[in-house]
Amino acid sequence: MVSIPFRPALAGFEPYGAPQLDVPVTLNVNENPYPPSPAMIADIAEAVAEAATNLNRYPDRDFLALREDLARYVAGEAGVALRPEQIWAANGSNEVMLHLLLAFAGPGRSVMSFAPTYSMYSEYARDTNSTWHELPRRADFSLDLDAIPGDIAKIRPAVILLASPNNPTGTALREAELRTVLEAARGQGPEDAPGTDALVVVDEAYGEFRREGVPSAFELLSDYDNLAVSRTMSKAFGAAGLRLGYLGAARDVIDQLRIVRLPYHLSAITQAAARAALRHADSQLSQVAGLRRSRDSMVERLNSLGLATAPTDANFVMFGTFPDRHAIFAHLLRRGILIREVGPEGWLRVSVGTPEENDAFFSALEEGME
Amino acid sequence: MVSIPFRPALAGFEPYGAPQLDVPVTLNVNENPYPPSPAMIADIAEAVAEAATNLNRYPDRDFLALREDLARYVAGEAGVALRPEQIWAANGSNEVMLHLLLAFAGPGRSVMSFAPTYSMYSEYARDTNSTWHELPRRADFSLDLDAIPGDIAKIRPAVILLASPNNPTGTALREAELRTVLEAARGQGPEDAPGTDALVVVDEAYGEFRREGVPSAFELLSDYDNLAVSRTMSKAFGAAGLRLGYLGAARDVIDQLRIVRLPYHLSAITQAAARAALRHADSQLSQVAGLRRSRDSMVERLNSLGLATAPTDANFVMFGTFPDRHAIFAHLLRRGILIREVGPEGWLRVSVGTPEENDAFFSALEEGME
Repeated sequence: MVSIPFRPALAGFEPYGAPQLDVPVTLNVNENPYPPSPAMIADIAEAVAEAATNLNRYPDRDFLALREDLARYVAGEAGVALRPEQIWAANGSNEVMLHLLLAFAGPGRSVMSFAPTYSMYSEYARDTNSTWHELPRRADFSLDLDAIPGDIAKIRPAVILLASPNNPTGTALREAELRTVLEAARGQGPEDAPGTDALVVVDEAYGEFRREGVPSAFELLSDYDNLAVSRTMSKAFGAAGLRLGYLGAARDVIDQLRIVRLPYHLSAITQAAARAALRHADSQLSQVAGLRRSRDSMVERLNSLGLATAPTDANFVMFGTFPDRHAIFAHLLRRGILIREVGPEGWLRVSVGTPEENDAFFSALEEGME
Repeated sequence: MVSIPFRPALAGFEPYGAPQLDVPVTLNVNENPYPPSPAMIADIAEAVAEAATNLNRYPDRDFLALREDLARYVAGEAGVALRPEQIWAANGSNEVMLHLLLAFAGPGRSVMSFAPTYSMYSEYARDTNSTWHELPRRADFSLDLDAIPGDIAKIRPAVILLASPNNPTGTALREAELRTVLEAARGQGPEDAPGTDALVVVDEAYGEFRREGVPSAFELLSDYDNLAVSRTMSKAFGAAGLRLGYLGAARDVIDQLRIVRLPYHLSAITQAAARAALRHADSQLSQVAGLRRSRDSMVERLNSLGLATAPTDANFVMFGTFPDRHAIFAHLLRRGILIREVGPEGWLRVSVGTPEENDAFFSALEEGME
């Protein structure tokens, strides 16, 4: 009989995470279906071996070389020049988000987002003892721009979390939408910091998969000091196992994150491996272009089956609706294909796999729909 | 002019960290002076290359293989058999501590420790919005066992943090001291969880350097459900750059940490590299034996110079006292030797280096004392 002081606020919670099942086709957590190239693997191994020669020493707490490399990558991918001092990184973008909420939210402050959206957001708020406000998106999963300024003025959030492309819907924000939220956030920071702006965090975990003509929020950084844009190497870089998320923002934002980060939070081998992977940006982005085409084909194919799809700028598609979505999910699983039972009632989400995996998914889906 | 909502609670704080200076002899952050062996480096590189072949997939969230290896290591080093479900790990023991305080402390709850001690403890409390109580140690840096039961009953802490060996003093806790605190914590958990015990966390970051006959708190785990013992691979394993801290405790404690950890907090390459390093436990522990002997020699040599030393079970020595400790620190730095100006007024701390580094330290110290 253990009598340790569990926190009442955590009672009833389970550890977050999708089921980790060993099936032939895993299209459930939006991973990149392609392993790193042999050249990238060799570069990572070499860089880690080099870093290991000095492993008895603490790593560079400020990971300056990695920040420079990330700035160079953002300049290439999004066409936006940032100084290394405007870049932050951590063990996955969820640690980036934790740092943001530790620095800017917390007890007595509110964090705001728009559902359906990434289910970890409410956990970041819970773990930082922030008050969580989840407002609804429109029926087409876009933001309700008519309501948002009033909602922001009422809630006075410290942080507004916007996923673009959104998970699980795939919805990207257009420039006008981003600007509307950013302007509405002006002067509407929390009541304990009157006159400040709410910090708007755009989570672009799937940013590289956006369609032609869809902007990255990085392009607005020079216009808005209350904007922070996060990315990850988990998806486009095919490096979910590396755990490297990063952020671009005004230097003042980054400097505040430095206060709440644990010292040496990025290991020497993480820094070395991430830098090695970044040297393969060109080939990874070519691969991303192929995945985007596959994604668009999957949308067409789902529509040709008479299914609705949410417009998607990500490496996944939300499709439906089914009177009994669990029956479809379970049928696919019996066929060795794991997708995700997530999103509004009746919808399912499937990640873009290899052509073979996608074919297996469609065969099983057509069978299941009969 | 940036008007983002900085948290008032963080105003005036600077990012934690010792100065990172490029000098020939760094004896300031208690690193192991020896880089990993070529065999360990090769094993790490091979393990990471293997993990990288699957890097597009998320890592095992529950790092079961690593937990088994850590349990095996603890059984060998401390002679205590733990099940893998009793082991936790994170990116450095400071992330382990953050998980503990997120799970068990927080707003309205207190965290208690005994100064002088590791300066990050108060930051963990700050970042989790816990109330921080720092009580004094005795003049010889031991715990004031007469006062502690009353202090615990008054403060009703959720978590009591005890470093053993303590940093910066080097003081290890004897078994009777540990048992006194553990017994005093019985039934004295926080007021919002009446009848629970305060959780006693023993931070054994320097545990492997303890002298013959000094127990590890791991030995008491079977007697106390309100005990958690943390370790790190940064010191004895010579792997500060790896960032791998771990913890042994009752399974119920570990299960609560799983709720507040960010999913996939340990990367696939961190898990692989840590497992590779653990295969070299025997040679690392031989090296630790040599560092312990060097440490004892340094104590004798400091005493022979007429200096006081705090009894130390760690890989560092706190010595003094100096009317102007900064003058000594600065003199050593001019000679290319970086130590730490930390601890009570008049004291300095030096890490155990290689024999050559220790000799350089003593030459410069003797010069500086003239």
